[in-house]
Amino acid sequence: MPHYVVGHKIPDSDSICSAIALSYLKTTLGEETVPARLGELSPETLFILDKFGFEQPELKTSYAGESLYIVDHSERTQGPDDIDEATILGIIDHHKLGDITTSTPLECWIRPVGCTNTIIKMMYDFHNVEIPKNIAGAMMCAILSDTVIFKSPTCTTADIKCVEALAEIAGIDDAEALGMEMFKVKSAVEGTPVRDLVLRDFKDFDMNGNLVGIGQLEVIDLAIFDDIKADLAADIAKLKAEGNRHSVLLLLTDIMKEGSEMLVVSDNADLTEKAYGKATVDGKVWLDGVLSRKKQVVPPLQESFA
Amino acid sequence: MPHYVVGHKIPDSDSICSAIALSYLKTTLGEETVPARLGELSPETLFILDKFGFEQPELKTSYAGESLYIVDHSERTQGPDDIDEATILGIIDHHKLGDITTSTPLECWIRPVGCTNTIIKMMYDFHNVEIPKNIAGAMMCAILSDTVIFKSPTCTTADIKCVEALAEIAGIDDAEALGMEMFKVKSAVEGTPVRDLVLRDFKDFDMNGNLVGIGQLEVIDLAIFDDIKADLAADIAKLKAEGNRHSVLLLLTDIMKEGSEMLVVSDNADLTEKAYGKATVDGKVWLDGVLSRKKQVVPPLQESFA
Ligand SMILES: [Mn+2]
Ligand SMILES: [Mn+2]
Repeated sequence: MPHYVVGHKIPDSDSICSAIALSYLKTTLGEETVPARLGELSPETLFILDKFGFEQPELKTSYAGESLYIVDHSERTQGPDDIDEATILGIIDHHKLGDITTSTPLECWIRPVGCTNTIIKMMYDFHNVEIPKNIAGAMMCAILSDTVIFKSPTCTTADIKCVEALAEIAGIDDAEALGMEMFKVKSAVEGTPVRDLVLRDFKDFDMNGNLVGIGQLEVIDLAIFDDIKADLAADIAKLKAEGNRHSVLLLLTDIMKEGSEMLVVSDNADLTEKAYGKATVDGKVWLDGVLSRKKQVVPPLQESFA
Repeated sequence: MPHYVVGHKIPDSDSICSAIALSYLKTTLGEETVPARLGELSPETLFILDKFGFEQPELKTSYAGESLYIVDHSERTQGPDDIDEATILGIIDHHKLGDITTSTPLECWIRPVGCTNTIIKMMYDFHNVEIPKNIAGAMMCAILSDTVIFKSPTCTTADIKCVEALAEIAGIDDAEALGMEMFKVKSAVEGTPVRDLVLRDFKDFDMNGNLVGIGQLEVIDLAIFDDIKADLAADIAKLKAEGNRHSVLLLLTDIMKEGSEMLVVSDNADLTEKAYGKATVDGKVWLDGVLSRKKQVVPPLQESFA
């Protein structure tokens, strides 16, 4: 029985590309391992897979009785629902340490860098395994995505150096130009149902017993949302009413202006005031300089719930 | 304000030597970091510090407002009591993943090897930092202690190679002979109060909401305990009565015969029957081949509580 590598629910490019890259590394080291995914892929990720000639990893949501590596998260709400019945062999991640626990020793490579694929590159180097050209290309795109082409405050010099090294292996001359091409694909919202946009890059967090869902859409120009912003706001209110979340937030991130408009529905009227020092007006607030959910949005919110 | 490195409560040699080794590495990399400890040191650890010329790390139990690295555990019950008010910068460990969480990204080096110091050697290699002779000696002794001179089932080829490399750096010809000398120090129980022996290497675990305390004494001959075994059994019953533990277990490990006698007081009369397939007689059971609390004692027990 092969081992699996799986990223978080509502997979982003980092979750998918790191599953592909890690399963190749493990298999090369003699441990048969296959990449998997917990949900549908975004246009950005499909663009990357198409560009470098990969099939979509297997859609697999149940892991009872299986052995698996977890990538790009360590939170129970974001992983497979039956993870308690699986054996976790390892975790490769670059987020805060979540609430996943194990009953046996394991392998964790967790670093405060911009992307899981930057850490997987360290693993290839540690094991002295050559990265195939197409895997290097996919890893590089994931790093450009997670670091918003190096603009995110989560980006480190390790990420930048890693993109340079991977571009060389993949034979790509202008990594940043490819990054912009990718973000243009990511910015396309026309014809996409509003709920699909809300959930395109959506993560749930357990904040001191309260479930908080935070979506993010990164685009090259916020004007893209002019016609649908009211619909997005209505839909996050609907999403909150359908479930048991304390709050649902949607970040509309302008990667060129380098800031985010946050749409908010919450049981706390003063949620953003408390967490970010800025109140909402009509359920919206502009947060200047905020590009990173992980580094700029989640920690202050977590603090405000403590 | 310097950063700290601290191991688990009732520190063992691995916790202390890895705190010393990691703080030197971090300081060398430009981040002022000092080793600390959560409790009194065992005769074995004092032997190592004396042998290689180290002072005892600072006794420090409160970390509110501080930044620290956690070594040799990732369990809330084993760490500082006010860890929630501290910033965890990283975790270096070789046990199952515990329930410590963070609100910010961090650095975790967790590997399924025999000793935390084996992982810290990987960190020195990654950063290309030379290990000072005396630190190499202390790291080597910690690995010999945790792996019971390579006999424990937790011992991996990485641990053995690491001891070889560290012995070379430290200028030690016969690492195993030094290991035996160390275990002779560890085996000395004469004149030590019974409660001190019970708590010498004692860890609490949260097993599905039940607090289980497990102590271990490793000696070169179980006959050492002939005169005091009844007192040890009485004392773990007393320890259980004093607190809120579901069970208190004490492993008397014979490193030459390669097995452990387990002394048991528990709210479940069939605890060892369920976990290890062998019932106690008069509160005692011999577990052949069992040397490792981490690999052979905790996981089956955890399973039996699930
Ligand atoms: Mn990521
Ligand atoms: Mn240890």
